[in-house]
Amino acid sequence: MNLILVRDSDFIDARRQRVRLHGRRHQHILAVHRAQPEDELSVGELNGLMGTGRITELTAGHVELEVSLKHSPPPPLPVTLLLALPRPKMLKRTLQTIAAMGVKNIVLLNSYRVEKSYWQTPFLKPAAIEENLILGLEQAKDTVLPEVVLKKRFKPFVEDELPTLIENSRALLAHPGLGTECPHNLAEPTTLAIGPEGGFIQYEVDKLLAAGFEGIHLGPRILKVETAVPALLSKLF
Amino acid sequence: MNLILVRDSDFIDARRQRVRLHGRRHQHILAVHRAQPEDELSVGELNGLMGTGRITELTAGHVELEVSLKHSPPPPLPVTLLLALPRPKMLKRTLQTIAAMGVKNIVLLNSYRVEKSYWQTPFLKPAAIEENLILGLEQAKDTVLPEVVLKKRFKPFVEDELPTLIENSRALLAHPGLGTECPHNLAEPTTLAIGPEGGFIQYEVDKLLAAGFEGIHLGPRILKVETAVPALLSKLF
Repeated sequence: MNLILVRDSDFIDARRQRVRLHGRRHQHILAVHRAQPEDELSVGELNGLMGTGRITELTAGHVELEVSLKHSPPPPLPVTLLLALPRPKMLKRTLQTIAAMGVKNIVLLNSYRVEKSYWQTPFLKPAAIEENLILGLEQAKDTVLPEVVLKKRFKPFVEDELPTLIENSRALLAHPGLGTECPHNLAEPTTLAIGPEGGFIQYEVDKLLAAGFEGIHLGPRILKVETAVPALLSKLF
Repeated sequence: MNLILVRDSDFIDARRQRVRLHGRRHQHILAVHRAQPEDELSVGELNGLMGTGRITELTAGHVELEVSLKHSPPPPLPVTLLLALPRPKMLKRTLQTIAAMGVKNIVLLNSYRVEKSYWQTPFLKPAAIEENLILGLEQAKDTVLPEVVLKKRFKPFVEDELPTLIENSRALLAHPGLGTECPHNLAEPTTLAIGPEGGFIQYEVDKLLAAGFEGIHLGPRILKVETAVPALLSKLF
């Protein structure tokens, strides 16, 4: 937790300069930061500004901070990530990574190689998604919560919604052995599609290419989704 | 396991065209590949060539393959990775990632923020290191086992050994807020130093800069080591 993320409901004064925290953040400040009264910590408001918080009260039950939030969060990546739903354990880590790297728009998509049971995981509940995204923001020092959309049907999404979604962006499909090498240093709006473990099947690849995606690859090595995601985002932007 | 890695001791004929596998690889071929006799699988020999293997016998206890290994493994990354020893769970995943991405020379280094207990983990035993490296090679389809060296003392290593190690390479220290932006698309031999969670302390940064390292950063976001490693390697090469 490199940034303590506070919410509207954490403020205890009308001027919004004081927050009181319980639970996980309080424990973290005690046990990991080993903070003392008067210490300054990095603080940000969810979907708001960042700055510092000075500890004014620290008890076994809560911590109070006087905050001064004046800086903008770091710029987001200009990307919408279209990701075949990973298996639950990897989903959790991948949401954290995606949030940490600055992606703000995420579509979790079905694919032939996504097991049906993956859609039943409790990690897909809105509160669980938010929890993992927040862990990523706290790690990276960002405040802006990404938006996650679930698309459980591949064909209608790709045929009916995707053409509009990618209209003003460069649409890239990362797939081993496909197209050209992954480009570098993009600044333009981009939609990046990444398949499941084992990859999109040929039918899905064809559908995405037909929808306007351009195939790219990361070389001869086949990476796990959790490695491919940071590798692709880092190379592209 | 996108590649079945076989060893010298797996061959059962003098012409080295047939292998018999038990245990993990046999189970994987049965349960994940759901392979049948006559199926062809990707096979590579550890530190050797890659190609295909045709299943000639498949029983509950073993599988036999007739192999034809003619292709070179993918080229390695021109990098020596100097990594502060991660905590055990992350070490395991990071070794897999590093091997999958094509790093062949790894130095696991002590640092002030590496807890002493991390050096006691069973994941540092040679067999455990090799096991995780092999998982990475099997994932990425590579055969060349990386070399891992442990350096438990920071100062003597950096003062006495590092200058020779980096002599003919570009030495980069990835550290948030330090130096210039991470360069792209390097082809020259590189030594890349990555600190522990929380980063190298200032003394260590100064020592590495004095030894000839050049500071680079990945932008304003602070990434976990397991995310920073693929992000840096992917951007650099």
